[in-house]
Amino acid sequence: MDSENFSALQAKRSSLPEQAADMISELIKQRRLVAGERIPTEFELASMLKVGRGTIREAVKLLVSRNVLEIRRGVGTFIADQPGQIDDPLGFAYYPNKKRLIQDLLEIRIQLEPWAAALAAQRATAENLEVVQNTCRQVELDIVSGLDHLPHDVEFHVAIANCTQNMVMPNLIPIISYSVGLFGTLTGKTLLSDTIVCHRAIAEAICEQNPELASRKMLEHLEQNRKELTRIIAEMDTEPI
Amino acid sequence: MDSENFSALQAKRSSLPEQAADMISELIKQRRLVAGERIPTEFELASMLKVGRGTIREAVKLLVSRNVLEIRRGVGTFIADQPGQIDDPLGFAYYPNKKRLIQDLLEIRIQLEPWAAALAAQRATAENLEVVQNTCRQVELDIVSGLDHLPHDVEFHVAIANCTQNMVMPNLIPIISYSVGLFGTLTGKTLLSDTIVCHRAIAEAICEQNPELASRKMLEHLEQNRKELTRIIAEMDTEPI
Repeated sequence: MDSENFSALQAKRSSLPEQAADMISELIKQRRLVAGERIPTEFELASMLKVGRGTIREAVKLLVSRNVLEIRRGVGTFIADQPGQIDDPLGFAYYPNKKRLIQDLLEIRIQLEPWAAALAAQRATAENLEVVQNTCRQVELDIVSGLDHLPHDVEFHVAIANCTQNMVMPNLIPIISYSVGLFGTLTGKTLLSDTIVCHRAIAEAICEQNPELASRKMLEHLEQNRKELTRIIAEMDTEPI
Repeated sequence: MDSENFSALQAKRSSLPEQAADMISELIKQRRLVAGERIPTEFELASMLKVGRGTIREAVKLLVSRNVLEIRRGVGTFIADQPGQIDDPLGFAYYPNKKRLIQDLLEIRIQLEPWAAALAAQRATAENLEVVQNTCRQVELDIVSGLDHLPHDVEFHVAIANCTQNMVMPNLIPIISYSVGLFGTLTGKTLLSDTIVCHRAIAEAICEQNPELASRKMLEHLEQNRKELTRIIAEMDTEPI
């Protein structure tokens, strides 16, 4: 990166490590480095960017905190899996009104997921279908064994999103499925047997390549959640959870 | 936070500032601090969390880089606007195949935005409508003046998302509108007059509280973009941009 770009960045931000982080990030994009690839050493970066090694070290820490880089001690610094994607990217944890949040998330899921299920029935590969069936079975197993099934529940919905072959959907779904976690906390175990039946029906419709049925079964599943949620919220006090 | 929680966090993560950042983050949620509120001083945090002030300083830097906190020099440390929400939360900048990315983003916009426009026509407040009309005018003004209209273009779509009264939509739309920026880069100025006509039709339908028309006009707008995009991509070589 030349000194002109550097000045432009300097004008924008105050801290030197922030600027160095932006430049390293630029370098990663220019060189098209992907997950698991090694970045230049601290020494190389310092001489390329004409800043001290302390600044590079700070910059790397910032990029680690943004899940762009990953330090493997004694080995080197690498591009992280799914670089730049962080847990809870919309900061849901900081929304004060969780009751409204969960209803609004469900409203968006109802718009997106039946459509995704229909696309899944049309576009899934054999490998995609295997993952859908496996995660479906894992959720059932969790429920039957009395384990927390929510992590596999999210995986089931992500597996369906993967079937769409849309590269954004599998990353968007977990954002929206934040509601799965919140919903589980609110509803406890009341919907467990419904979950087994609904998930199985959705998985079967996708495997049978029936888009209309897949979409309808997903909609039924989410509408059932919405109905239960409305009932529970009506029972709760007006205090935000 | 008691020492048991602290040990649990220690087991999970390696760096002390990361752990302190998690604890400060917990504190913010527990106290329901919102945008613009001040957090305890470095000294107070160090004594509450039983770690050194250097660790607190590092932890605060991490939270600033995640847009949870904001330092106002000489004043104090505050909760950031829209805490925890970062630019490009899905790491689109690091996706190697931008051509496919933009098509997949458009596919999702076509599913979400006509629906959002219909909801907007049903749920918008008077203030919401004013913002829709203003951003619509600003986009026109930018185009007529030969300025870059893309920032206002995104604001226009966010203004519509705000009309839905769904608290997640205004945050989700910018993620998806990442495609607006990419699309502008690809298409240059070919769609400018179409943009003016389409935006105006969408804004009018929402102001007239006509959900069916608002949805249809938004769909037309996005389908027009898709058509143009397909044409442009067909003309380009197979090299990822």
